[in-house]
Amino acid sequence: MPRTILAPLLLCAVFISLSEAQMQQPLALMPMPAKVQLGEGRLSINTSFSVAIAGHKETRLTNAVELFLGQLRRQIGMPPIDMKEIDSPTATLTIRCEGGSKEVQQLGEDESYRLEITNTGAQLNAATTLAVMRGLQTFLQLVQTSAEGFAVPAVSIYDSPRFPWRGLMIDVGRHFIPLDVLKRNLDGMAAVKLNVFHWHLSENQGFRVESKKFPKLQEMGSDGLYYSQAEVRELIAYAYDRGIRVVPEFDMPGHSTAWFVGYPELASGSGPYEIERKWGVFDPAIDPTREETYKFLDAFIGEMAALFPDQYFHVGGDEVNGKEWDANPKIQEFMHAHGIKNNDYLQAYFIKRVQRIVSKHGKTMLGWDEILRSDLPDSIVIQSWRGPTSLAAAAKQGYRGVLSSGYYVDLMWSAERHYLTEPLSGAAANLTPEEQKRILGGEACMWAEYVSPENIDSRIWPRTAAIAERLWSPQDVRDLNSMYRRMEDESQRLEWLGLTHNSSYIPMLRRIAGTDDVASLKVLADVAEPVKDYTREETAPAPPTSATPLNRVVDAVRPESVTGRQFAMAVDELVAGKSRPGAEVQMRTLLSRWRDNQIELQPLFEKSLLLKEVAPVSQNLSVLGAAGLAALDYLDHGEQAPALWLTAQLAAVEQAQKPQGQLLLVIAPSVEKLIQASAKQTASMPSPLPAK
Amino acid sequence: MPRTILAPLLLCAVFISLSEAQMQQPLALMPMPAKVQLGEGRLSINTSFSVAIAGHKETRLTNAVELFLGQLRRQIGMPPIDMKEIDSPTATLTIRCEGGSKEVQQLGEDESYRLEITNTGAQLNAATTLAVMRGLQTFLQLVQTSAEGFAVPAVSIYDSPRFPWRGLMIDVGRHFIPLDVLKRNLDGMAAVKLNVFHWHLSENQGFRVESKKFPKLQEMGSDGLYYSQAEVRELIAYAYDRGIRVVPEFDMPGHSTAWFVGYPELASGSGPYEIERKWGVFDPAIDPTREETYKFLDAFIGEMAALFPDQYFHVGGDEVNGKEWDANPKIQEFMHAHGIKNNDYLQAYFIKRVQRIVSKHGKTMLGWDEILRSDLPDSIVIQSWRGPTSLAAAAKQGYRGVLSSGYYVDLMWSAERHYLTEPLSGAAANLTPEEQKRILGGEACMWAEYVSPENIDSRIWPRTAAIAERLWSPQDVRDLNSMYRRMEDESQRLEWLGLTHNSSYIPMLRRIAGTDDVASLKVLADVAEPVKDYTREETAPAPPTSATPLNRVVDAVRPESVTGRQFAMAVDELVAGKSRPGAEVQMRTLLSRWRDNQIELQPLFEKSLLLKEVAPVSQNLSVLGAAGLAALDYLDHGEQAPALWLTAQLAAVEQAQKPQGQLLLVIAPSVEKLIQASAKQTASMPSPLPAK
Repeated sequence: MPRTILAPLLLCAVFISLSEAQMQQPLALMPMPAKVQLGEGRLSINTSFSVAIAGHKETRLTNAVELFLGQLRRQIGMPPIDMKEIDSPTATLTIRCEGGSKEVQQLGEDESYRLEITNTGAQLNAATTLAVMRGLQTFLQLVQTSAEGFAVPAVSIYDSPRFPWRGLMIDVGRHFIPLDVLKRNLDGMAAVKLNVFHWHLSENQGFRVESKKFPKLQEMGSDGLYYSQAEVRELIAYAYDRGIRVVPEFDMPGHSTAWFVGYPELASGSGPYEIERKWGVFDPAIDPTREETYKFLDAFIGEMAALFPDQYFHVGGDEVNGKEWDANPKIQEFMHAHGIKNNDYLQAYFIKRVQRIVSKHGKTMLGWDEILRSDLPDSIVIQSWRGPTSLAAAAKQGYRGVLSSGYYVDLMWSAERHYLTEPLSGAAANLTPEEQKRILGGEACMWAEYVSPENIDSRIWPRTAAIAERLWSPQDVRDLNSMYRRMEDESQRLEWLGLTHNSSYIPMLRRIAGTDDVASLKVLADVAEPVKDYTREETAPAPPTSATPLNRVVDAVRPESVTGRQFAMAVDELVAGKSRPGAEVQMRTLLSRWRDNQIELQPLFEKSLLLKEVAPVSQNLSVLGAAGLAALDYLDHGEQAPALWLTAQLAAVEQAQKPQGQLLLVIAPSVEKLIQASAKQTASMPSPLPAK
Repeated sequence: MPRTILAPLLLCAVFISLSEAQMQQPLALMPMPAKVQLGEGRLSINTSFSVAIAGHKETRLTNAVELFLGQLRRQIGMPPIDMKEIDSPTATLTIRCEGGSKEVQQLGEDESYRLEITNTGAQLNAATTLAVMRGLQTFLQLVQTSAEGFAVPAVSIYDSPRFPWRGLMIDVGRHFIPLDVLKRNLDGMAAVKLNVFHWHLSENQGFRVESKKFPKLQEMGSDGLYYSQAEVRELIAYAYDRGIRVVPEFDMPGHSTAWFVGYPELASGSGPYEIERKWGVFDPAIDPTREETYKFLDAFIGEMAALFPDQYFHVGGDEVNGKEWDANPKIQEFMHAHGIKNNDYLQAYFIKRVQRIVSKHGKTMLGWDEILRSDLPDSIVIQSWRGPTSLAAAAKQGYRGVLSSGYYVDLMWSAERHYLTEPLSGAAANLTPEEQKRILGGEACMWAEYVSPENIDSRIWPRTAAIAERLWSPQDVRDLNSMYRRMEDESQRLEWLGLTHNSSYIPMLRRIAGTDDVASLKVLADVAEPVKDYTREETAPAPPTSATPLNRVVDAVRPESVTGRQFAMAVDELVAGKSRPGAEVQMRTLLSRWRDNQIELQPLFEKSLLLKEVAPVSQNLSVLGAAGLAALDYLDHGEQAPALWLTAQLAAVEQAQKPQGQLLLVIAPSVEKLIQASAKQTASMPSPLPAK
């Protein structure tokens, strides 16, 4: 990638290291750029703001400038007739782009840019339109409000991504996600410099794209919920204008029941087939032994390869349980005749033939870990749900890979846990530099068992911004407090783009409660998180299906509680004797509210069926509030909590830690810490307050 | 209109009167149906809910059912594969529609329906698809949450609108409003049974529709902000599927500067012309004396008459100041030659000729009050910004009319004031029944000097729901408490449709403050309203223009403060000695918060230029809080407030009543009442609390 144009500029500047920059100033940049040097002064942003394109000019670039101006106007409340693109050297921001875009965005296109802002103007220099888009997003994140009005600080930024493949996968098979919801998520991706939208388009529960060659795929396999080819083109154009590639996935030979509803002859079983309604791994799988299968796939992949212009084509290849293969005598006969030892080898045979078809249509194949069993050309790319070790093994064999293990946002992990998932860790850390280059990046994955258009944004954002930073920023950018602070700022900006991860919360609680007065429900929901990993499915009261309403409190609460995290920090500081002024007062206010919330929330339980399952959670919250307050009293009095009290409280906390209504009360471990501290304290421990 | 199909059913039922129905049950219906009889029991709404179309079936009806199911699923959190349209007598809701839709929705089409819900099923009967749409909206409003799940109550409803023309006008000329914003507002209109979208498409500040015959209209007259003809068709189809007619307005001969930028030969002055940036009435006007003018208008109106299928075509006709006519010797010569006495007659001459053109293209002309100066056929319709007296005069002359005076939502009036504006009041109340029939209804008008896509919804909603009820429901439905309660419920439902009148509030405050922590700003903004009527323009610090940013606190606060209204009610009850239990405690909490808010808000003033103008408002709020608390103390102690104190407080309140930052502190009059009460009280007045 040609970065030489930037080199002379780079040499002139003395950049401070990133961690210094972070400490010196609170720029709300996410992902953090490679190098940031804060200057003196600021550049005002007002109605006379203008942009000039000084270098290469093309439609995609002027579109990018228009999008940028639209967001900037929105951010500072300017009407659309202000802030224009002009053809003049006096522009506030001058963009100099060296060359034109490719018709289809490529993996590894140069995304590095240099942004220089002084108190008289700004310069954005980059080799490609794509990189200009990245720089414009950085500019937007720099806009601050002040007593003198809106401005960006004087700053020198040189920026370049660590990994070239930074993706978000959305599963639209298990629950259909309408086009406008995908579009707003593409806006969010562009804001945090993600560059691959991986569109998981077929699943046991739905086939989501119109095929003109095989119309029964969508007609019988989608419940009428699919994208027309015109809509697919519309989304691809939308993504292109935001610097995002669109990689389609058609999962095969498993995860394919929906295909068989219209085309049972593709399957290994005898059918008939219906769209799957439950979750999990199912028996139906494509019959890899019939030549007709490959004729079908050749025609189908040919059609889709023309519809989706990206170089990469994802064929899934994961989770085949082999039961239909085992049960089909013809398949067994085929295996015997061709010396195929077991189902793994049969799948390898299938994937290898599919790879040839994909390649024939000019595409590079991508698949999940399992495809690596096959003897495949090293052009293919492995997407790993297994982890860096699996990726490292593939890299050693010469294969390129993308990490998704650790980035499954449906598992309701904390942003911290995703953020600290490092593609070049474990075995991957010990690869040679050349092998490491084969690790292309990663993808956040939004599997869709429990999402609807109403809550999907809150499952993706803001945590995906943390993943985006992991994939873009230097490896040593790892400060959690800084990340959380910047992620919250970014979260607000994402709402301006139309994402609903925050704004849908209260309306959803209101709908569930059947009343507008949800203050007490919010007190509870603010400190509740959905159960983690696959617990929701494992502990479901009834087997969940695609027809299960997503209208429970667990569907509304956020994956990571901000209140819970802040409370935990305050408790940690307090028990370490390092409480900040006022912190204990705040803590007592919270604990009292939790203790008393049960009384206010009680009437709602009578009003809404959907709230009944939350009653025990509320009870537990009340117990935790009271226990925390009592523990604080002991601590404040410098008095050791009695053993009997301790035992009773710990039992209560243990009870409160158990999921109820598939919700976790995230403050329970912190309350436990307070209780333990109150029992352990001795005269030598500093009391946060003078003893009464 | 044939209502006979419903008559036999009507005779069988004994309906209770509406006011009784309102008192007996808290159904959140808005507009209130003509007749409601609550039954016994309830019909569960769950995943097995289904709809059958038993009578006439057509695409528009199945679209309506799909929209209905989509909203119902959204409301109760069901996935889209549930709640289907089925072809079976076992359906939960059976729709029987007598006849098909007209290709273009007509004024006066039958909108009456009958909805019967028992605990086993529901029947919706109507003559037209249009009326079915109205009944389906009523069904959606009946859905309640309960301890047993979602349900609708058993109920018999017969409903029919009072007026056939129930509109919302949006001015997209002064500020361009994007298509998606209009669409969500059409959803809101459908929810409250409005049936005319009046699209004010041309103004001095912008010409907003693509003309293929005269492309310089949009190319030079719109800043690039206009709707393509394809977009216009898309919006009309969207409206048709929601039972809404689309009436275009091209304002002439005044309000037309934007036309002259591309076609100066149309104007009465010598030009050149530029798009107007300021607000008000401007001199430029079409030259009514040149034959070329009418050739142009014939071609233009012909093109637009084909684009907009509605029978009605609005030509504006308002506010010509005549200055360009006075200054043009050729026009003066023409008037002299044709015996045209003054500019009023010249305008009448113009409008009459335009009317003939409109009529030639098969349309019925609509215009503002001023057009009535002309000797026009009585098929035309007058839209009145002057009031019911003007409408009554027109009706007496045989003209039909639509009321807009009293429904200007840009004037920031209370919902109450709009709600009590009655089309058949004043002179109109004394019309003969036949003359009264000529008063077709009314239109809420959203003039767009101070709206952007960000805040336009909050200017239209929820107050327009009150106007919708005035135009739909029986004249005697006038209970304000009931209206406000139902309007708040409807306001929540409107948010589910995608309207942002509530959800944009906090993000806007955050943007203005430049921080997420806007709790103290919200305390102030919750009791502040924008100045009323035309005060904003009259008292603007600098002349506002279309380039003025709409990013002030006055752009974020709501037209009517809910907190302010509730506080006023509580004060009225208290000074009348009829306080409800706990009301005074709540009042003291509020007053204390207002008094102390200044300290919390202070740091934000240093951070944001946009907040500086709010500092004196905050100061006043603090003074009001303290004064109110002191007054309560006097009242509680049964002590008469001293005269000196009284004088000082009333002076302070007077100061606080003055607009600051173009904001009104709506609690000031109530605090004044408290102060006055504390001064007036004698031993005979009951003290709300025992004297200490």
